[in-house]
Parts: sequence; structure tokens; C-alpha cells
Amino acid sequence: MHSDRLLLGPGPSNPYPEAVEALSRPVLGHLDPEFLALVADTAQRLRTVFGTRNRLTLPVSGTGSAGMEACLASLLEPGELAIVGVNGYFGERLCEVARRVGARVQAVHAPWGRPLDPEALLDAQSRAPSARLVAVVHAETSTGVRNQIAPLAALRDTDTLLLLDTVTSLGGIPVEVDSWGVDACYSATQKCLGAPSGVAPVTVSDRAVRRIRDRERPVCSFYQDLSLLDAYYQGDPPRYHHTASSTLISSVHAGLGRLLEEGLPAVWERHARVGERLQAALPEHGFEVFAEPGHRLPQLTAARLPAGVVDAEARKVLREHFGIEVGAGLGPLTGTGWRIGLMGHNAQNRAVTTLLSALPSLL
Amino acid sequence: MHSDRLLLGPGPSNPYPEAVEALSRPVLGHLDPEFLALVADTAQRLRTVFGTRNRLTLPVSGTGSAGMEACLASLLEPGELAIVGVNGYFGERLCEVARRVGARVQAVHAPWGRPLDPEALLDAQSRAPSARLVAVVHAETSTGVRNQIAPLAALRDTDTLLLLDTVTSLGGIPVEVDSWGVDACYSATQKCLGAPSGVAPVTVSDRAVRRIRDRERPVCSFYQDLSLLDAYYQGDPPRYHHTASSTLISSVHAGLGRLLEEGLPAVWERHARVGERLQAALPEHGFEVFAEPGHRLPQLTAARLPAGVVDAEARKVLREHFGIEVGAGLGPLTGTGWRIGLMGHNAQNRAVTTLLSALPSLL
Repeated sequence: MHSDRLLLGPGPSNPYPEAVEALSRPVLGHLDPEFLALVADTAQRLRTVFGTRNRLTLPVSGTGSAGMEACLASLLEPGELAIVGVNGYFGERLCEVARRVGARVQAVHAPWGRPLDPEALLDAQSRAPSARLVAVVHAETSTGVRNQIAPLAALRDTDTLLLLDTVTSLGGIPVEVDSWGVDACYSATQKCLGAPSGVAPVTVSDRAVRRIRDRERPVCSFYQDLSLLDAYYQGDPPRYHHTASSTLISSVHAGLGRLLEEGLPAVWERHARVGERLQAALPEHGFEVFAEPGHRLPQLTAARLPAGVVDAEARKVLREHFGIEVGAGLGPLTGTGWRIGLMGHNAQNRAVTTLLSALPSLL
Repeated sequence: MHSDRLLLGPGPSNPYPEAVEALSRPVLGHLDPEFLALVADTAQRLRTVFGTRNRLTLPVSGTGSAGMEACLASLLEPGELAIVGVNGYFGERLCEVARRVGARVQAVHAPWGRPLDPEALLDAQSRAPSARLVAVVHAETSTGVRNQIAPLAALRDTDTLLLLDTVTSLGGIPVEVDSWGVDACYSATQKCLGAPSGVAPVTVSDRAVRRIRDRERPVCSFYQDLSLLDAYYQGDPPRYHHTASSTLISSVHAGLGRLLEEGLPAVWERHARVGERLQAALPEHGFEVFAEPGHRLPQLTAARLPAGVVDAEARKVLREHFGIEVGAGLGPLTGTGWRIGLMGHNAQNRAVTTLLSALPSLL
């Protein structure tokens, strides 16, 4: 038996009780008609949270990083250009994954803690109109910055696709895949969707589906080839690809059910409210919120520690004495800052109260 | 709520009760010291079932197919030669995945239903001694054939690595990674290990680890790069890579615990006994066991249907009326045969009795 933590790091978060309960349902075979119906209903729920009518919407059997790689590997061919917005760790990871699948990468930087400039991304594209895609992280998990996506809808009028990382945003703040002209979007289940990790929701526009279909070379990854996953989950008859886990999909389905029962606007409002409360209170304890005001995510707060607090030691006390996990800092906050998540089931006043009550004894 | 099936297909199988119970344990963060200790203990249990002392032994966050791809992508560089034994669907998949990561592939065939000839594989290697690896499926899930691996230990004296697929064998029949000179081996959790799907156990020899370390080009997959997974799970300090699921790892750990408590010899004997009973009884019902006698797996039986039985219809009655899943045939058995698994928790007399009792009403 292991410990029971209040998970206030950058994810995983504690899942909704409904998502936990669903984990113990009887296992279904990966080609059972009931399982494929469960996948189809999960995809329908995902369309609602993604704000899309995309036919190709499915759960990839892996974590958010697998969703990222499934999109990049399926959309990019060797030698093609990817323009990537980079203002944190996950923008850098997009570059790394794109390079590994053989693409050329042009990074458009903004400082960590500040938002990307959509105009700079559009400029880069207009100077390289043959670029296959522009890739951007919506919610930078490393810094707590919210990047602005709506202006990038202008890419719809070009031949360049828009790829969006919503790992930390989906279910926490509004995501509007269709109205923002997003061509491919991936997320993860263990953050604002309130389920365990292990599944990456992915949605792909019809024009991006055509690009995948018209590829010259097969996708370097068999496991993460979105056209094979499409033929499995939505083929008629379904074409065997891998042994998807009914255990995880049932849990994600149940978590999404709980979220949609509450309603997206209410869920967003709940995340906004608790995040603002935390961000207002942290400076009173000597913390300095890292992300630029006006561009902060409510669900993920990166903050510099008060002077004199030893990072690893304080997190250990928090974990072992109080049973609370927070995340270590990344990049400029390595060893000097924390990342605090209030996501999904943990986007509750109770979580903020618990954390704030514990802080004084650490400082 | 969905149906409760007796899963007698090629996997998933119904997990051990201990593995189901563990799914609802509190979620742990992916960098929590307790989680990393759980991973380490899971790796230790995996070493026992793999029959290895390999340091690099870990659970890949994906299904068996991800394990296959993690090994091929990490071990092969573009242009290198892979010699692949092919006597069924999963041998063909090895070729496909190896080609996608950029390797050249030389297939060494045997007919579906018959075992590979180890001498033919060794011959192929001696004629192409610069081949990076020889890859073989131990238990062909498509045909129920057991391939002989021990003679391939001779590859130890060459520069060619031995890669072994134990997706359907691990925990069901003896696997001896070290004494067979296997350099890389992957499996899956939803078959004879008695846990849900979603995790691929992988083990890699020290000489294969050196090959990965000495690569000229990075692995095309970030998500499935075994050196990054090693740095995450066994690094000091652990280096963040992806958000591994404590939910799944807890379940696999518990399933392995149950298996090792019973003891590997007893578990193998249990699989052997029920498989022999099924294979002795099937001909009495008009089925013809597909794999060559003397090379049959007890845990997975492919069999031709009796004349006059309509495959999909009979499987539907079995599923809907009796609550039993069996698998469709593949290759030469498509539409004319079934694959019946007796794996892990379902390697029980009860399962054989239930299935055999249902058969007469289908025929």
C-alpha cells in the first residue's frame, strides 16, 4: 500500500471519484463492439471539450507526450519545416520531437514567463509559406503562461497547419479547436480532465487528415500513426492495431461524463476562481508568481520561493508531513520555484485552503 | 455500465483480482519517491519473470506494440539490417515497424502454423554478419506456434543482437532471457501476466545498452527512446520524461506479485495443463488445432472451425448469450478459425469447462 497524496503539482491530479470507480469495471476486449461503442462515446465527449466537430477524434494509448508525438510524426515528413513557438519547456519539447521525426525546425521564441507573440508566429509563416505546420503550446506547464491562440486562425488561409498542445488547458480554460482553426490538437487526461494518466486525447481537422493520407512516406511510428488508429477505432470493420485498454478508456469516459454534467462554463469558472484565490494569496507568503499578469493560467501557477526556503527540503516536508505534492520548478525556476496545479477534481477551494494552511510552517 | 465477459481471446484476459484491486489505489505523482520505488520493485519482479539480471528493465507506458517499437526504434539506425523471423502476423509486424524506423529488413520465413527454423536464422546472420539484430516472436499469437529460442544463443558470439517478442509467452511458458542470450525483450501485461493492458515490460542487455548509447543519430521516437526512459526511472536524480501512470504500474506490480507468490513453475504448469485439456477436447467438437504438434503453445490455441460454422455469427452468440469472448482468426484462419486464450487468471479448468460446455449449442 502506498501513500494517499493531495496532488497539487503540474499533474497528475487526483481523479474524479467517478473516474476512479470506473477503473475497476470488467475488462472488455479491444475489438468488442461494446468497447468500440465506449471509444466512440468517449470521442463524442472529447469533441465537446475540444470545441470541435472533427471526425478524427480519438484517445491515443499513451500519455500526453505520446499525443504530441502522434501528431508531429503523422503530420511531418522528413525535411519539412515546422515553425514552433517556444516560451517554455514544452515548446522546447515540440522542437525536439519534430527534429527526431526528421523535420527542420524554426523556433519563434518569447522569454519564459511571457506569452508568445502571435504576430511573430504569423510573420515567420509568411516568410516561409511552405512550412508544414506551426506548433504552439496553449498552456505552458513549465511557467503557468497562457498563450493566445485565436489570432493564429489566420493560418487557415495558408497551406500551413496549426498544431496545438492543450495538455494543461483542456477542461481547465476554454479551448476552441474549430473556431481557432486548429488542425491538430492533443491533450492528456491526468490534469484538468480529472482522470488518471495514460491516455492522450487527439483531434485532427479534415484538411490535416488529407495531408496524412497524401504522405509520401509512411509515418516513422507504427504505434502512433493516426491513420492506423483511425482505421482501428472508426474503420468498418475496425482494423486491429493494438490492444487498447478498456480500463483506462472507461475511466476517461467517466471523468469526462462528470465534467460535462457540471458543464464546461461552470468547470472553467471553478478553475478560474480557485486559481485567482491562490495567486492572490501566494505573495502574502513571500512567493512571487512567475507568469506575466494578464497571461496567467488559473490551473497552473509557477512561483518563485521566498528567500531562504530550500526547494527540495520544503517539498519533502510538504509531501511527508502534510501529504501534499507540488511540482519542482523548471528552467529559470529550477531549485528556486514551484509549480502548483489546481486541476480537475482538485480545482476546489478545499485544496487551496489546505495548501495555504501548510505554507507558514515551511517558511 | 458494460458487460462482464469471460475473456478467452488472444488477450486481454481477465486480470487477477489483486491487479484489479490495485487500480483504485490513490494516484501517485510520476516523480514521487514512492512511485519510483514502486517502479523499481516492479522492475525487480519483471527481472524474475524474464529470467534476467539486466539493469535496464522497465515498464514502457504503452501496450505491447509500444514495447516492440521502443526496442526496434532504440536499437536500429536508418539503413541498418534487421533479420526477422516471420511465421505469423506478429513477425510481419516486426518487419513493418523495423522498416518504418528506417531499417532494411530481411525476412526468414516459415509457413504459418509451423515453427521457425533457428538454423535458417543463424545462416542468414552468418551471411550478413553486419546485421544489427535478429528479431523473433517467441509465441506467435496469430497461430499458437511456439518458436524455439535457445539455439539463437549462438548470436552472443557475433555482433548481431537478439531481439525477442514475449508478448504472449511471458508468464505462460518459460522465458529465459539471460540463458538464451537475448539482448532485448518486450512483452505486454494483459495476457499471461494477468493485469490490464497499457504497459509493455522491456528488458535490455548491457551490450545492447552500449549500442543504444553509441548511436550516431537520436532515436526517431522521443516517447519510446529507451535511454530516456532509463534516465527517468533509474536516473540519479530521475530525469522527467513523461507522466507515467501509477494506476497501471500499481496494477501490474500486484499482478506480478500474485504470479510470483504462486511461483513461476506452478504458473507454467497451470497454463500447460489447461491448454492441453483444451487442445485434446477441441477435435471432439470438430475443431482442428492449427499449430504443428510438438510446437503448440498451451496459452493460445488457433483452431479451424468445424465445417458449416459461420465465424462471426458463432462468436456473436458466444459473446452475447454466453458472455465469452474468443478471438477471430488471422491470416489463413481469417473467417475460418478462432484463437482461444487461456492466460494468466483465466488459465483455469473452470474457463475450459465453461467454453467446452457452450460449444455444442454453436455447432
